[in-house]
Amino acid sequence: MQQYAIPIANLIEQLSKLPGIGRKTAQRLAFFILEMDDLDAEKLSKSITNAKEKIKLCSICCNLTDVDPCQMCQNTQRDKSIICVVEGAKDIIAMERSREYKGEYHVLHGVISPMENVGPNDIKVKELLSRLSDGTVKEIIIATNPTVEGEATALYLSKLIKPLDVKVTRIAHGIPVGGDLEYFDEVTLSKAMENRREL
Amino acid sequence: MQQYAIPIANLIEQLSKLPGIGRKTAQRLAFFILEMDDLDAEKLSKSITNAKEKIKLCSICCNLTDVDPCQMCQNTQRDKSIICVVEGAKDIIAMERSREYKGEYHVLHGVISPMENVGPNDIKVKELLSRLSDGTVKEIIIATNPTVEGEATALYLSKLIKPLDVKVTRIAHGIPVGGDLEYFDEVTLSKAMENRREL
Repeated sequence: MQQYAIPIANLIEQLSKLPGIGRKTAQRLAFFILEMDDLDAEKLSKSITNAKEKIKLCSICCNLTDVDPCQMCQNTQRDKSIICVVEGAKDIIAMERSREYKGEYHVLHGVISPMENVGPNDIKVKELLSRLSDGTVKEIIIATNPTVEGEATALYLSKLIKPLDVKVTRIAHGIPVGGDLEYFDEVTLSKAMENRREL
Repeated sequence: MQQYAIPIANLIEQLSKLPGIGRKTAQRLAFFILEMDDLDAEKLSKSITNAKEKIKLCSICCNLTDVDPCQMCQNTQRDKSIICVVEGAKDIIAMERSREYKGEYHVLHGVISPMENVGPNDIKVKELLSRLSDGTVKEIIIATNPTVEGEATALYLSKLIKPLDVKVTRIAHGIPVGGDLEYFDEVTLSKAMENRREL
């Protein structure tokens, strides 16, 4: 049986390690890359090494950034008394799209998950606590995802932070705007009922 | 609104140029790459540049290869009197999986498509003709895809090659093995009827 030439096989193997990229897609991408302009392929390859080299964690909020502290932490317009705690750096982008929130962020880089052997020391909890020591921060909004691990992490953080005399809040769970009741599971619906507000 | 740091934005842009990778997927891949081991990311980036550097077209059959002539053309066990003409290098891999065909291949690197401004000179037709000059080749099997462009290319090649006293054949179209009649379009079905064989 005909085998791929080694550099092609290697490219396919590396591509198939990416999330959501199976063997077939990796093959398709590999052949696309092989037929690309040399310059474009060079750009793609460079963008990977460049991003890995330049992007570090912000020493304050642990966001991914190419300057330290990150632009968000450098921004004096933002409210330093509130920190929104998120699981990953991309959650900040999602949050910022709402243009509502003007406080700071803190990126945990994961959630506590005993199943996957991730404990509080494996995520950026220590870094969050150190931001609370000087008393500027008055409120922590925990915006981890509404999964079992996200909820557990939220609970863990609130127990840890409340004794420091900082208000701890959790983002609301309920029906998304534009959503249709019949398509949501019973847990979402019961959360929506539980968190109902007077009009 | 929070923007991505430039190296991240650049990585996302480059990834989203790949086929089937939209903006959302590119973002997901970019963040995955950023959280990867430095070594793994290096491997990915290297595999791209390495493949682009090492992989060239075989000077005989135009297959993608890291040695010239390619392993297929170097293989003396294969039947030099038959050439199977395919659109792309990945078609060879598909064909070889059947373990049936023992002849040579020729990769066109495309099909004639007036809509996309691809003429006979833009694909490897000249290279195919030059392989027919010494009289070793007795049969050309045209295995372009059964699309409008694939059929037109097949017709064009057969008109070009028949006068050279070389047999030109086309792979059969019909119902794939394991297929269900009701799921195939009328063109496939009429092809299947037309190409029926006596049992």
